[in-house]
Amino acid sequence: MYNHAPENYKCPLCLLVNGIENEHTMAKQVDIVYRDDLVVAIINSKFVGNNPGHVIVMPAKHFENLYELEPEYAHRIIDISQKLAKAIKEVRKCDGIMIKQVNEPAAGQAAFHYHMHIVPRFKDDNYNKEIVNGNERVSDPSERIPYAKALKEYLKNHND
Amino acid sequence: MYNHAPENYKCPLCLLVNGIENEHTMAKQVDIVYRDDLVVAIINSKFVGNNPGHVIVMPAKHFENLYELEPEYAHRIIDISQKLAKAIKEVRKCDGIMIKQVNEPAAGQAAFHYHMHIVPRFKDDNYNKEIVNGNERVSDPSERIPYAKALKEYLKNHND
Repeated sequence: MYNHAPENYKCPLCLLVNGIENEHTMAKQVDIVYRDDLVVAIINSKFVGNNPGHVIVMPAKHFENLYELEPEYAHRIIDISQKLAKAIKEVRKCDGIMIKQVNEPAAGQAAFHYHMHIVPRFKDDNYNKEIVNGNERVSDPSERIPYAKALKEYLKNHND
Repeated sequence: MYNHAPENYKCPLCLLVNGIENEHTMAKQVDIVYRDDLVVAIINSKFVGNNPGHVIVMPAKHFENLYELEPEYAHRIIDISQKLAKAIKEVRKCDGIMIKQVNEPAAGQAAFHYHMHIVPRFKDDNYNKEIVNGNERVSDPSERIPYAKALKEYLKNHND
């Protein structure tokens, strides 16, 4: 429904979910901070301005966007987004959390597999301004490791 | 948990849910486009740049933010956000849909009752730039009526 993925799309998030790292994937397996039977969450490869190391949560099954998402995946995604939001609050000592999820290129969708962004927000971080100014970059995998490690550690110790 | 509502907060969204229009509410009862036993959705009072008439969906019970939201409400919110996203696509003929939900003032939260924004996006609408430039305004109630009417009409005819 309202699909934009090109024919024979090599879905980078399906590759990630299936444990593959190749030329089609920016994400590494060590970026994974949470997984269960329905969803996977990682430290996002792209870092934005003053808010590096945010998390995305995605269904393990391929759905291009919100319009297609099946209810059991949708429910798990919002449950886990809540769990991760609370964990990010503790680990990052941030002042707020922003949830963002975009559908179709006009809204800014680049990877054509549903994913919800969970972004730590800080007082006066100028998040929107940084986006407008194009201050978004692909991080080096090594930059993501401390964020992933801290969050995994927290989740391991707060498994409720 | 991480609460910011002042003492004796007159929650404008609780008033809305309970059918009240007074000096604490910007929203009118005619702004309501959807309601069931757990959630209410309205045309948002604030209009942003080139994306006027977007929708917010909220739990009928008071939760300040995502950290506190109970699962049955969370599940219904994502289900209804999907239903509304598809309806907005048809009614507004928009090119995409953005979901945004902010927690705590640092992330931009102004009304201290959880609510998820469902925003119609259009090619080159410069949404983020309009936000940065402060092009967000409280609409006149009369401006919201055609948006509410069209969406209610669509939902009535597509009750599946």
